[in-house]
Amino acid sequence: MPHLDQVLNDIDKDLDNSLQRLFAWLRIPSISTDPAYKADCRGAAEWLAGDLSAMGFAASLRDTPGHPVVVAHLPKPGAPHVLFYGHYDVQPVDPLDLWEAPPFEPRMATLSDGRKVISARGACDDKGQVMTFIEACRAYKVTTGSLPVGITMMIEGEEESGSINLPAFVQANREELKADVALVCDTGMWDRDTPAITASLRGLAYYEVIVRCADRDLHSGLFGGAARNPIHVLSRIVADLHDDSGRIAIPGFYEGVREMPREVLEQWKKLDLTPEDFLGQVGLRIPAGEKDRLLIEQIQSRPTCDANGIVGGYTGEGTKTVIAGEASAKISFRLVGDQDPAHVGEVFERFVRARIPDDCSVEIVRHKGSKAIQLPHDMPVLKKAQAALSDEWGTDTVTIGSGGSIPIVGDFKRTLGLDTLLVGFGLDDDRVHSPNEKYDLTSFHKGTRSWARILAAIGA
Amino acid sequence: MPHLDQVLNDIDKDLDNSLQRLFAWLRIPSISTDPAYKADCRGAAEWLAGDLSAMGFAASLRDTPGHPVVVAHLPKPGAPHVLFYGHYDVQPVDPLDLWEAPPFEPRMATLSDGRKVISARGACDDKGQVMTFIEACRAYKVTTGSLPVGITMMIEGEEESGSINLPAFVQANREELKADVALVCDTGMWDRDTPAITASLRGLAYYEVIVRCADRDLHSGLFGGAARNPIHVLSRIVADLHDDSGRIAIPGFYEGVREMPREVLEQWKKLDLTPEDFLGQVGLRIPAGEKDRLLIEQIQSRPTCDANGIVGGYTGEGTKTVIAGEASAKISFRLVGDQDPAHVGEVFERFVRARIPDDCSVEIVRHKGSKAIQLPHDMPVLKKAQAALSDEWGTDTVTIGSGGSIPIVGDFKRTLGLDTLLVGFGLDDDRVHSPNEKYDLTSFHKGTRSWARILAAIGA
Repeated sequence: MPHLDQVLNDIDKDLDNSLQRLFAWLRIPSISTDPAYKADCRGAAEWLAGDLSAMGFAASLRDTPGHPVVVAHLPKPGAPHVLFYGHYDVQPVDPLDLWEAPPFEPRMATLSDGRKVISARGACDDKGQVMTFIEACRAYKVTTGSLPVGITMMIEGEEESGSINLPAFVQANREELKADVALVCDTGMWDRDTPAITASLRGLAYYEVIVRCADRDLHSGLFGGAARNPIHVLSRIVADLHDDSGRIAIPGFYEGVREMPREVLEQWKKLDLTPEDFLGQVGLRIPAGEKDRLLIEQIQSRPTCDANGIVGGYTGEGTKTVIAGEASAKISFRLVGDQDPAHVGEVFERFVRARIPDDCSVEIVRHKGSKAIQLPHDMPVLKKAQAALSDEWGTDTVTIGSGGSIPIVGDFKRTLGLDTLLVGFGLDDDRVHSPNEKYDLTSFHKGTRSWARILAAIGA
Repeated sequence: MPHLDQVLNDIDKDLDNSLQRLFAWLRIPSISTDPAYKADCRGAAEWLAGDLSAMGFAASLRDTPGHPVVVAHLPKPGAPHVLFYGHYDVQPVDPLDLWEAPPFEPRMATLSDGRKVISARGACDDKGQVMTFIEACRAYKVTTGSLPVGITMMIEGEEESGSINLPAFVQANREELKADVALVCDTGMWDRDTPAITASLRGLAYYEVIVRCADRDLHSGLFGGAARNPIHVLSRIVADLHDDSGRIAIPGFYEGVREMPREVLEQWKKLDLTPEDFLGQVGLRIPAGEKDRLLIEQIQSRPTCDANGIVGGYTGEGTKTVIAGEASAKISFRLVGDQDPAHVGEVFERFVRARIPDDCSVEIVRHKGSKAIQLPHDMPVLKKAQAALSDEWGTDTVTIGSGGSIPIVGDFKRTLGLDTLLVGFGLDDDRVHSPNEKYDLTSFHKGTRSWARILAAIGA
């Protein structure tokens, strides 16, 4: 890989300037959910398009019904082409009084353990992470006159408000967005020393179950003992969802679930994610999932079922002796492997209906469904990125799964036919979405160097 | 029983005047829950005290922190003394546009099946029912110059708003309210032809169960599979409350439950209360209680357990992928026989705590508890009243239980040492608490005659 050492050297030398550019962008309060910041969102998009244009990208703002998308192209004939995705919008900042410094006045700070950090709203999520990629490109361009691969960037302004206009945008511009692979910088490292690539995302199937018994609310004194109580019917359904071993007890539910390759499981075992480390942070200590699975499997590679909400009868202060006419629950599943949301919907509905008494009824609303995403474990780009990250951080790169879904990755696959490599440098203590968001200077600096290495590897 | 025939004859002849007196009382809108009707409540109390004074009672208004209680005495040395309880306040009338005529302009109406009815708010509950007793007293006084028994009346004005001041009033005046038995006219007949005495009331034990797992709400993508879900823990508790036979599965819960005497069960079997008749009115058809019990046992003489409310997690529109930090349910028990609410609280708490994972916690709030009321089946006054009602209605009187509790009956027992006979002439279609409340003319007329017979029997 010619020039790489020189590029890395230039990244080191230019770090202060890189930070000043990031700070300029961080000063623009691009809060996408709050209409009061509409002009600021556009301002953040314009700043970015200007910066990319100055680097030689063909960059422009593309209007949507919401905030604009920044699209920038710098092709390289004969080389692989990547589509890089990120977002320039940030979360709201309330409660403001919990911030140690104004959220849109970025500054360097030093933590009690000596770590230097960038402090501001968006320092990590996602302006700081996006700039690691852009600064790597800039260093390549300045140092060598060109990029090692062709690049299209698509940086949106509505990720923190649901990306509602993005799927249609991708669909409408699918020819323009064609690439060989998609890259996203919006995830985290395993820990401060260990780089990670997120290679799988769990899918989602979300239902609402409404059980109806009597045609009105009843007095529990008059009808208690004879009238079917929908809260009991619903509780039975929820209680039956899991067996005593933590396994989901819906017949047919596990169809399509795949075991992880042995080498990934070996790697995960070495990571030794303990209940103390993971659950301790939220006041728990006993993993609730399948008893015969590693904790990391429970949250990354195994399907789950959770009642996300339940309501029925009287829920105010004090007492009311009522037997409700109906009760409802929101129940969702995290899917993995080749689990089909439609099939899950069928077996779930059969499971629920089998538990409804003959004189009661049930309505099942299917809210949304998405399949899991799983990169092929032997995908060449994945292997190249792993090696590049290991070179930069001096330790093996771990391949992890994300427990949650990132909808745009599904759109890239469905609409553009692209696999997505999720590489990010966030840390668990970055306080994204909370007051005093920060991004370690190490994440920013070595993140930039990491992207230079990854681009070089892909282009090689 | 000297004079009884003459008294009954005079009741028949004076019916129109009785109705005019009831109408005068019904015209006063004594809605106790609405402060706008405070003066009207006092007005209804004053009207009643005036009427009773005119009959020779020593009647007065007794102030409370809320609406006044009317207390009236007419003792009869050497004869048994009864305490009669009723209430002069009425339910609100909204929605007003569903009334066929103004609720406080009482009138006679004729139903499509030819029945003549008194139509007004309070026509049955409880002014009409109270006036059956008062008109019986009046007829006795006018016809014979005296009553067959000594009588104290206590007619309150806050029954429809929870009787919050009555227990303290009874306690403070317990010497003055002494009697041999209490009579209440606020219940119903079995059907239009069959008189009934309510001889048992189920007790109540009411709890709130709050299950706490993580110390905050969690993202179901990140934590799903590993974090304990309090909705699942709570659903397991609710689901475990009953076994497959409909029996309550809490060890020790049935301690103190008694079987009804064979003759009562025989009577109940003859009544043949069907699921179609009882549950059909609310859109159900399959009794949910203990499979080996009559439907009438399930609602009158057997204990019950119902979740009156449940809530946890996201309950708004659409979806949220959250694992809640806590979930709560209100769970209550109807008690019978000698079941002790304190004991029920203990076994319930043990049952709940056994189902809480070691890294979660539970808070159990004990809201209220009252023992069941059960008149001795061989109580002489009960036998006399049964015979008197059977004479009037020409058919056997049934002894029934009320599924609900009537708290004042517990106060009479605890504070005054009195058993209470609940005799009333309401019908299922009286629409108490609803628009177009009515009271059958037959209920009013034969109800008055019934009380004359009961008073004669008690005094004999």
